[in-house]
Amino acid sequence: MIFTSKQTLNTNGYHDMASYMETLAKKQKRFISMDSARNNIGITVSYWETLEDIKNWKHQSDHLKAQEKGKNDWYSWFHVRICKVVHEYDFGI
Amino acid sequence: MIFTSKQTLNTNGYHDMASYMETLAKKQKRFISMDSARNNIGITVSYWETLEDIKNWKHQSDHLKAQEKGKNDWYSWFHVRICKVVHEYDFGI
Repeated sequence: MIFTSKQTLNTNGYHDMASYMETLAKKQKRFISMDSARNNIGITVSYWETLEDIKNWKHQSDHLKAQEKGKNDWYSWFHVRICKVVHEYDFGI
Repeated sequence: MIFTSKQTLNTNGYHDMASYMETLAKKQKRFISMDSARNNIGITVSYWETLEDIKNWKHQSDHLKAQEKGKNDWYSWFHVRICKVVHEYDFGI
């Protein structure tokens, strides 16, 4: 799941929530890994075993509350793309 | 295509090349869009019409030179994931 976002100027409570969401995501079944980077915009990519696991994570109760806070306070916009990895390779890992 | 990377301390020439690659990618056929963010790690996601377009971009001649420089000088590691978007939605766009 690719989550691309632009923050508002109100980041009150954001960092604690982001940290909690990362901890919580890692506890979900069939979670694989997560990468985040932010400067002008933020990109968070989380990897899961199946599309069903992404759906379950979307509907996780504390995550739902975080999404609501995100829309009300922290994000001026975001874009979510659910993807299937079809091929991967790396260098230096 | 999701490109996740860790830079080395040698960023000599990196920014000019990154800027040129962005300009060049945008000129390729069936390129859709590109998002980048970097702090501790970098994540660049480029969107293309088809998987074939991603393959063509990978083999574009100037891009091949940039990849070589990247492996030799700028990246301590990177990870490439080729994905198919199966679903997307947004907020505030």
